[in-house]
Amino acid sequence: MTLATVKECLNQISTFINKLPSLLDFEQVEKMIDMLIYAQAANRSIFVVGAGRSGLIAKAFAMRLMHLGFHVYVIGETITPAAGKGDVLVAISGSGRTGIVVTVAQVAKQVGVKVVAVTSHPDSPLGKLSDHVVFVPGRTKISDETDYFSRQILGIHEPLAPLGTLFEIAAMVFLESIVTELMHRLGKTEEDLRARHATIEVP
Amino acid sequence: MTLATVKECLNQISTFINKLPSLLDFEQVEKMIDMLIYAQAANRSIFVVGAGRSGLIAKAFAMRLMHLGFHVYVIGETITPAAGKGDVLVAISGSGRTGIVVTVAQVAKQVGVKVVAVTSHPDSPLGKLSDHVVFVPGRTKISDETDYFSRQILGIHEPLAPLGTLFEIAAMVFLESIVTELMHRLGKTEEDLRARHATIEVP
Amino acid sequence: MTLATVKECLNQISTFINKLPSLLDFEQVEKMIDMLIYAQAANRSIFVVGAGRSGLIAKAFAMRLMHLGFHVYVIGETITPAAGKGDVLVAISGSGRTGIVVTVAQVAKQVGVKVVAVTSHPDSPLGKLSDHVVFVPGRTKISDETDYFSRQILGIHEPLAPLGTLFEIAAMVFLESIVTELMHRLGKTEEDLRARHATIEVP
Amino acid sequence: MTLATVKECLNQISTFINKLPSLLDFEQVEKMIDMLIYAQAANRSIFVVGAGRSGLIAKAFAMRLMHLGFHVYVIGETITPAAGKGDVLVAISGSGRTGIVVTVAQVAKQVGVKVVAVTSHPDSPLGKLSDHVVFVPGRTKISDETDYFSRQILGIHEPLAPLGTLFEIAAMVFLESIVTELMHRLGKTEEDLRARHATIEVP
Repeated sequence: MTLATVKECLNQISTFINKLPSLLDFEQVEKMIDMLIYAQAANRSIFVVGAGRSGLIAKAFAMRLMHLGFHVYVIGETITPAAGKGDVLVAISGSGRTGIVVTVAQVAKQVGVKVVAVTSHPDSPLGKLSDHVVFVPGRTKISDETDYFSRQILGIHEPLAPLGTLFEIAAMVFLESIVTELMHRLGKTEEDLRARHATIEVP
Repeated sequence: MTLATVKECLNQISTFINKLPSLLDFEQVEKMIDMLIYAQAANRSIFVVGAGRSGLIAKAFAMRLMHLGFHVYVIGETITPAAGKGDVLVAISGSGRTGIVVTVAQVAKQVGVKVVAVTSHPDSPLGKLSDHVVFVPGRTKISDETDYFSRQILGIHEPLAPLGTLFEIAAMVFLESIVTELMHRLGKTEEDLRARHATIEVP
Repeated sequence: MTLATVKECLNQISTFINKLPSLLDFEQVEKMIDMLIYAQAANRSIFVVGAGRSGLIAKAFAMRLMHLGFHVYVIGETITPAAGKGDVLVAISGSGRTGIVVTVAQVAKQVGVKVVAVTSHPDSPLGKLSDHVVFVPGRTKISDETDYFSRQILGIHEPLAPLGTLFEIAAMVFLESIVTELMHRLGKTEEDLRARHATIEVP
Repeated sequence: MTLATVKECLNQISTFINKLPSLLDFEQVEKMIDMLIYAQAANRSIFVVGAGRSGLIAKAFAMRLMHLGFHVYVIGETITPAAGKGDVLVAISGSGRTGIVVTVAQVAKQVGVKVVAVTSHPDSPLGKLSDHVVFVPGRTKISDETDYFSRQILGIHEPLAPLGTLFEIAAMVFLESIVTELMHRLGKTEEDLRARHATIEVP
């Protein structure tokens, strides 16, 4: 076997990640970073939420924020406390329509939490209700516009990675770049992160 | 249908819970409460761990400790930070032999964490390595001694609830009683707990 | 210290569990058991959902259903597939008003899933939309009627266990009795359960 | 502010993903794919495990395998059943030394499960005990060799992304390419995946 599909998929993802910086709006990124730093400075908490694979990306981001010393919680985990005024919710949804993420964002707004949406669809229900939107490209599960979107925006003729995969990878890479910027601005070294890294790790 | 099994099982569990106070060693309980309060007073963290259904009981306890204002983390969740000297690990295992719980307790000891075992088997590997053991009765997955244990200690002739069920229920009830004692000693009301209860709840 | 609160709390929970069988409606229980067995017989799946501590009780029940050989999934876990016609959702909420559980139950109904509510409030939003309701007593987080409810129904003068604790314990005990009845009806032994019990356990 | 760190980090990750195909050993990839397909053909299960962020990548992969129709379970989740002879464990650890992942792999071997390691360190404890190793590049938490490794292998002068980030991204991208290859070989379309995608999604 030639593994042609593996290779072509790797090439497409590589092409897509190469284009990612040109597709981001860095003013949106700057404002998101400010919101995180201001919440921390005010001793407030960051909450993250996402459904399915976007939820896993949200958790990966939360883990690094914890390493950086933020008060950060994952919606739905055991020790997540009350959220309230001054806190920030980072809500991740490619389509911006995932029912439960929209519901969580609505409840968050009602209790005074600022919502940052990370989505490919700023005009979605999630985008519209959020205090701030960061556009992250990706085919999403809403595939009507797939062909146009993939060819024109992502530069991929026939995307192989299914469903929300490209958004999820883009979101993960984007959020990592936020982490390095936060390290830089807060003067944190890798050793600082390592010092807070779980010493008792389990799956 | 008569639901005879449902009814008999409810009766057995009731009999067992009735006997629970007479089977606990309240000096062990007192010391566990002290360890939790001293950790909090020293601004240290509580970690909880358990595998399978015991892990769920551990999480239920952690949630109430969070409501009470403790710094508490579940081993294996996203934002669990490094544990270290002065922290306390509550390790729950009926048999005291669950491989991963024993491993976690060993690692915890190595980094200076005090380990409290909640187990039916104080002589087990977990019990032996722990700094403090609280005996909580229950048939456990080690069933060799089941018949004797059930008849003599638990007062149940032929226990219906399978595997570790009785231990898990006893552990849950026992840990709830710890929570009410902590409320009493720390002067916390139900309103205080409600104020920290997650405002954005998801499954 | 005398641990008076621990002891009184244990007594209250014991009193409450003693009363539990007289507070259940066994026709409701029978119908719930039938729904589970019929779903399994038709090769359909059981889904469980609950928020916070009720979600942990839901998971404990799901684990035993898996041991019994049911196709069972926890809403929100990684490998939970599409639900559809003929499947059953067991939704656990003491108050019957937990926003996200109600939302999940609504979505489940829309895709043809039968919903069984386990709740202290059959007249709640969850109770009203469910195909079947099983009443399980307990003080719940809705505490307006607490005094009356606790004294008259639960037989406890001033309940110590905070918030939803009594419901959660009652739900756990009740669901365990369902497990033993299912073992009986399906002819499963403890060895059968043990054979499906996770061999690689982690917290 | 110029967001220079965000931009440089995005560039480094892009450079790294571009190099990824040339760093993989496609014979290793082919054998991993075969092991997954043979397990499915024999009606056996796939288990996945990883600690921390690698565990999240493992879950993202498991979710897609479920969408593809595999019997797949995440070690540590509620309804994960017994593993045994003929099953496959995919263990993800950049360093290959994460204590709990090594322990899980050892237990898996003892019960007859074939272990596939996805790691940057084939000579690690995990690599050595596994039945099959797939090398995925990345700086890992073992940073002694960081400078050499980053400059020579990854083509990055001073990597900004901290700790295991590069491995985690590479593992996610690599596993996505496996998913598309499996779709191709099993003749599955995006619609097939969508049909199994959770209809009741929560965080």
